[in-house]
Amino acid sequence: MRVALGVEYDGRAFSGWQTQPGGNTVQDKLNQALSRIAGHPVTTLAAGRTDAGVHALMQVVHFDTDAVRPLNAWVRGVNAHLPPEIAVVWAREVSDEFHARFSAFSRSYRYFLLTHPVRPGLTAGRVGWYHQPLDVDAMRAATAVLLGRHDFSSFRAAECQAKSPLKDLQQLDISEVDGLLRFDLTADAFLHHMVRNIVGALLYVGTGRLDAAGMAALLAAGDRTKAPPTFMPDGLYLTGVGYPAQFDLPSQAQAARLTLWR
Amino acid sequence: MRVALGVEYDGRAFSGWQTQPGGNTVQDKLNQALSRIAGHPVTTLAAGRTDAGVHALMQVVHFDTDAVRPLNAWVRGVNAHLPPEIAVVWAREVSDEFHARFSAFSRSYRYFLLTHPVRPGLTAGRVGWYHQPLDVDAMRAATAVLLGRHDFSSFRAAECQAKSPLKDLQQLDISEVDGLLRFDLTADAFLHHMVRNIVGALLYVGTGRLDAAGMAALLAAGDRTKAPPTFMPDGLYLTGVGYPAQFDLPSQAQAARLTLWR
Repeated sequence: MRVALGVEYDGRAFSGWQTQPGGNTVQDKLNQALSRIAGHPVTTLAAGRTDAGVHALMQVVHFDTDAVRPLNAWVRGVNAHLPPEIAVVWAREVSDEFHARFSAFSRSYRYFLLTHPVRPGLTAGRVGWYHQPLDVDAMRAATAVLLGRHDFSSFRAAECQAKSPLKDLQQLDISEVDGLLRFDLTADAFLHHMVRNIVGALLYVGTGRLDAAGMAALLAAGDRTKAPPTFMPDGLYLTGVGYPAQFDLPSQAQAARLTLWR
Repeated sequence: MRVALGVEYDGRAFSGWQTQPGGNTVQDKLNQALSRIAGHPVTTLAAGRTDAGVHALMQVVHFDTDAVRPLNAWVRGVNAHLPPEIAVVWAREVSDEFHARFSAFSRSYRYFLLTHPVRPGLTAGRVGWYHQPLDVDAMRAATAVLLGRHDFSSFRAAECQAKSPLKDLQQLDISEVDGLLRFDLTADAFLHHMVRNIVGALLYVGTGRLDAAGMAALLAAGDRTKAPPTFMPDGLYLTGVGYPAQFDLPSQAQAARLTLWR
């Protein structure tokens, strides 16, 4: 039987999603907790391999098991064995055709950026920070050139393992409430560091060091070394994963669980 | 010279406000950082002594120093020496008549309570949690009996050091968005554990184990042993402190810094 899970986590406590010898990753913790409920070793596969310090409002994973358990055991039973900063929010039985990574047609990320003279304290590790106001109108103007299907090599980390740098960026919205900026991005898939590199470039636009034309030139160059630096992971959240309707999975985190993050 | 500071912190990382031999308290960290900027030992006094795990959107403290520094040194200079989870947000020079604790005429606290079948993950330690929906209308009805000046002994921790159990509860509002409850409380001062004990009693109302008449009887009894248990510290935030206008201090946290918590 194949089971899909929706998982949320505070990325600060872990060395990213992907399993590592040290074992302090979200995948390691989840595999261990699932194995205890299943009674056999369980390996999960995720829609998005988030970096160290990156959070998830809704990561989607799947695993295979012969263990017969009520679905709730894969939620509340597993949560009893997980660190407090990780929670399984839902579980669904899915067909063997489902694959958390390969069945996904979109991923959505959100980035929170505090613009304030004083660094975060209460929100340390959960928002990015810039010490002065940004020109949000200029930033919005520069987002248009990034939308659509492009070679995003200029926003791709050197260690990226994606087969192709061609990605379809379907959404790049910037909203602001009282100096807290929120970037919402959706694409078929993202290259390694792509969101943080786009936010880093938009920060340059917001401070006047780059404009929309410069952003277009940067995209066309296809050269990471020409682009502004990767921005900090702190404010980045995986917010949802899109799957074909046949799998009938929640595509967004439940409202009650993300009210603080709207 | 006397200096007042507005301070925010994530309480999870510390053993409460008040200095302890182990040194892992907010006061210890703040005293150390201020001492480095001042060049002499600095001791702070706070408006509210928050417990372990309790957060602050705006704690107010004061200290005395002979060191002549630009006000910004007491903010950004001190922040460079503080753990990431604590930040000084503002500094003001105040007259010697000002006392962070004794000049305050009100304190405001907020409590976030997630009502959801699944425990928090991303918001672990930052919201309280109850596993099923609560009757918010009944809870609101029961708040009325608590408003005003009362002997709050039924909501007072055994170790409370306040001289009198008489406190004037000026505000007790409950709002709800998508299953996330928010309690806003303001009083001249609060007894030890008073907010968490009130939230604990209101939780009993929300589940039908207590009603408004029962709440009135509980208040009248003046007996902690008759009251429901103290609720978890996780969702509790000190949000502001009221001072006479003559001191010209910010009474609330700046909007940009608390957008995630509204």
